[in-house]
Amino acid sequence: MKLWLFILLLSVSSGFAQITYELKENIPYYDTESQKSDAYLKERCKLDVYFPKDTSNVVTVVWFHGGGLEGGNKHIPEGLLEQGVAVVTVNYRLHPKVKHPVYIEDAAAAVAWTFNHIKEYGGSPDKIFVTGHSAGGYLASMVGLDKEYLKKFNIDADKIAGLIPLSGHSITHFTIRKEMGIAGTQPIVDKYAPLFHVRKDAPPILLITGNREKEMLGRYEEVAYLYRMFKVVGHEDVELMEMDGYGHNMVYPAIPPLLDFVRARIE
Amino acid sequence: MKLWLFILLLSVSSGFAQITYELKENIPYYDTESQKSDAYLKERCKLDVYFPKDTSNVVTVVWFHGGGLEGGNKHIPEGLLEQGVAVVTVNYRLHPKVKHPVYIEDAAAAVAWTFNHIKEYGGSPDKIFVTGHSAGGYLASMVGLDKEYLKKFNIDADKIAGLIPLSGHSITHFTIRKEMGIAGTQPIVDKYAPLFHVRKDAPPILLITGNREKEMLGRYEEVAYLYRMFKVVGHEDVELMEMDGYGHNMVYPAIPPLLDFVRARIE
Amino acid sequence: MKLWLFILLLSVSSGFAQITYELKENIPYYDTESQKSDAYLKERCKLDVYFPKDTSNVVTVVWFHGGGLEGGNKHIPEGLLEQGVAVVTVNYRLHPKVKHPVYIEDAAAAVAWTFNHIKEYGGSPDKIFVTGHSAGGYLASMVGLDKEYLKKFNIDADKIAGLIPLSGHSITHFTIRKEMGIAGTQPIVDKYAPLFHVRKDAPPILLITGNREKEMLGRYEEVAYLYRMFKVVGHEDVELMEMDGYGHNMVYPAIPPLLDFVRARIE
Amino acid sequence: MKLWLFILLLSVSSGFAQITYELKENIPYYDTESQKSDAYLKERCKLDVYFPKDTSNVVTVVWFHGGGLEGGNKHIPEGLLEQGVAVVTVNYRLHPKVKHPVYIEDAAAAVAWTFNHIKEYGGSPDKIFVTGHSAGGYLASMVGLDKEYLKKFNIDADKIAGLIPLSGHSITHFTIRKEMGIAGTQPIVDKYAPLFHVRKDAPPILLITGNREKEMLGRYEEVAYLYRMFKVVGHEDVELMEMDGYGHNMVYPAIPPLLDFVRARIE
Repeated sequence: MKLWLFILLLSVSSGFAQITYELKENIPYYDTESQKSDAYLKERCKLDVYFPKDTSNVVTVVWFHGGGLEGGNKHIPEGLLEQGVAVVTVNYRLHPKVKHPVYIEDAAAAVAWTFNHIKEYGGSPDKIFVTGHSAGGYLASMVGLDKEYLKKFNIDADKIAGLIPLSGHSITHFTIRKEMGIAGTQPIVDKYAPLFHVRKDAPPILLITGNREKEMLGRYEEVAYLYRMFKVVGHEDVELMEMDGYGHNMVYPAIPPLLDFVRARIE
Repeated sequence: MKLWLFILLLSVSSGFAQITYELKENIPYYDTESQKSDAYLKERCKLDVYFPKDTSNVVTVVWFHGGGLEGGNKHIPEGLLEQGVAVVTVNYRLHPKVKHPVYIEDAAAAVAWTFNHIKEYGGSPDKIFVTGHSAGGYLASMVGLDKEYLKKFNIDADKIAGLIPLSGHSITHFTIRKEMGIAGTQPIVDKYAPLFHVRKDAPPILLITGNREKEMLGRYEEVAYLYRMFKVVGHEDVELMEMDGYGHNMVYPAIPPLLDFVRARIE
Repeated sequence: MKLWLFILLLSVSSGFAQITYELKENIPYYDTESQKSDAYLKERCKLDVYFPKDTSNVVTVVWFHGGGLEGGNKHIPEGLLEQGVAVVTVNYRLHPKVKHPVYIEDAAAAVAWTFNHIKEYGGSPDKIFVTGHSAGGYLASMVGLDKEYLKKFNIDADKIAGLIPLSGHSITHFTIRKEMGIAGTQPIVDKYAPLFHVRKDAPPILLITGNREKEMLGRYEEVAYLYRMFKVVGHEDVELMEMDGYGHNMVYPAIPPLLDFVRARIE
Repeated sequence: MKLWLFILLLSVSSGFAQITYELKENIPYYDTESQKSDAYLKERCKLDVYFPKDTSNVVTVVWFHGGGLEGGNKHIPEGLLEQGVAVVTVNYRLHPKVKHPVYIEDAAAAVAWTFNHIKEYGGSPDKIFVTGHSAGGYLASMVGLDKEYLKKFNIDADKIAGLIPLSGHSITHFTIRKEMGIAGTQPIVDKYAPLFHVRKDAPPILLITGNREKEMLGRYEEVAYLYRMFKVVGHEDVELMEMDGYGHNMVYPAIPPLLDFVRARIE
């Protein structure tokens, strides 16, 4: 679908004729230096910004796509369109062209870019929420929980307004385990696992997965364990949801609660 | 929104340019006699049929709107549009202009109309699913479980292909209780309660509610009890889903599992 | 280990070597008048009091046995022995010799007797908890929730310190339904159902059942619905427990949480 | 009731008046060589066998006590007494006198001893179940899941008839993490975690914990994740139970389901 048509449809259906949205595509999120030094980085490390025009201080949702760290591409979940929030949607480098922890480093670079540039698009650095689905949920968790990745960009991960990993691994991601020679059904938790970085002072967190019987690889239970460990360490703003009727493809029903969560933490 | 625009949008967004959908509105579902004798019936007892053109033998979903038996109007949940299924969406008479069991009688009349006329719209009487939200879910349950209502139209309720009450009462509806002088928080189960009519040979049934903490009036738990009683009597095709992240307004996430349920029972 | 050794360990481990317990058996709980007028009442309406000697102001647990309102006899669950609490264990008249609501009336008479006489055994009328299993749980709920039964004995049901129905019906008891010609698998909720009498100001309540898959007749779910309705009406001290690994015979694991509940509400 | 009466009832109620039980205490489970070389091993590595006299081919339950790998002593949970099963209850060396993996090696040695000697006490090597509470549950899981430990004794771990860890870690035990310099609230999963050794062909497994809100350190959820991973890898005989009303001290209600599980797998 053409962008103009897309925008037309949006403005017709919204009933908020006064708000229009703009989409800026393929913005590099690494500096020129980095882009010169690595052709794949230059090609892949780009993001789109979708934002309400002529506003300021709006919420921004950073979206990391899924695909097992091996596939997928930046896109905007339909439910995030026309919601009065900006969306930063990110491509990051993929296995096997790169190995861990490059995926997480890219994700951190994209979040850092958002902190540094979102004002130019009407966003506020104090209202940045980080989310994504599956591998993208994993990246959201890692960037928000292991503070080392953002620290390299001089950003305190606790400045993130909220983390909403959708069906993301709590244990070490299976593609990273594959790189270590460990099977997808054999759990490990090391420094590449969100569980390893549970801490009381992490940003507010909303954890959502599909139904436990329909999900892949025990995803509900591993996330329920992450939820519990946040409670155990005294984190005061963590929620867990299980989407009955859905398996791993649970983005559609998760977006409205995600937006509820975001809005409740902004007011 | 105008119908032509609505249709335009649908065909643009669908990617199934070959299927077009038509909407026939305000079809009376009682006979002329009945319409003559009762002005409110004549005004209110109408339904719309939305259906894929130039097809046959398609699934039909009968939709009863919510509104506590006191309000609401026929409409089609967005998720049911362009799904290759026909939708019959129904107005029925409301409290306080009528009293129970008129609501259920109207619902039965509309389902009977569907059995008798859906072929004219490309539907199949063997593929009629009955659903609705809240009061509409209650009506779906009552029409499908208490066989007396459809029997008056010479229709066997067990010919319904499936029942999918969304967040509907299992106990006697609170507006009916109000008509009896009983408070909304005081449960009774009598012949106006779906629970009273649990039976092994009822149609396949999918029960969905919002999250137990967010729902109204114990809706999840009363429906979970209905689910269990179907299991107890030996019903072999009953499912229960709880929509985390949603309260009583849970139609949006419920429609895709509803369609999965429908499709799985048709093939 | 030899049995004598085992016994020795029991008495050592109790740490209450100084407390001895006494059992007074077969105390009639109706007045002489009533006993004269009804031979079956005279025979059946008796209770035992088991109590720690030479103490005062102790907690009393009234125990109603199970047996579907058709069988069973007064006894003391093993876990209630030697716990520093008095136990009043009650026989009540049974179907088919009597019909409803005689069972509930007898239960109320026994509770009334406890209010009026427990001081004589070292108990306190302010620390009376009412419990029982299955039909006995149902009777505990009815006596505590429908205030009419105790009112006949000039006792305010809200003076009960707590209700702990174990695996008791929330809906109208199946033997009462049988007396009405209604099948055990067909739910009704009328004035003989605890659910009908849910109210905000009821005594503290702990609801326990067996595991939902192993229980009979949907017992877990009907009790979960009772729990939820207490929450809906604003009751502030209600808990629900489901005993995994146990079906309807769930008294053994339920007694320790029952005692925890009792003790937490006394201090 | 007098204590003597209580005791009388116990012996009457058992119905196995003919069976007497014997307790052999402090049997070393390492060979003489090992005992000579290590004074602490010699002192600590002992077990008791409690068994029904004059029978053969009975079930044996190996019990590992809890205490965080730092404390505790062999004992027999009351519910395992007089149940027609033999119980092997084991002391193993403790932190800080030893470090991991000595605890697991000791546990394996005790299980190996049971395989090699239980016939002498009327047991059958084909009916050995391994269980324990807390740290003891962890040891049961490790010995049964990581086949290396028993392999050193030429025993195939899959010959164990069933594993029933009660409230045991699924992740690497916190005392082992302490030995690695990792906090008790920071999860890791490595080769000292039962989760690392999930496999399809493991013995039948029953997982029981206390209630999720009352347990320590997320114990229910980590065990629920272990349960799910067994399902994911295709294990066909795994069950999960959560003891409502109990926290980490959940042995009492767990023993009857444990015995049900054992008996169902023997017939």
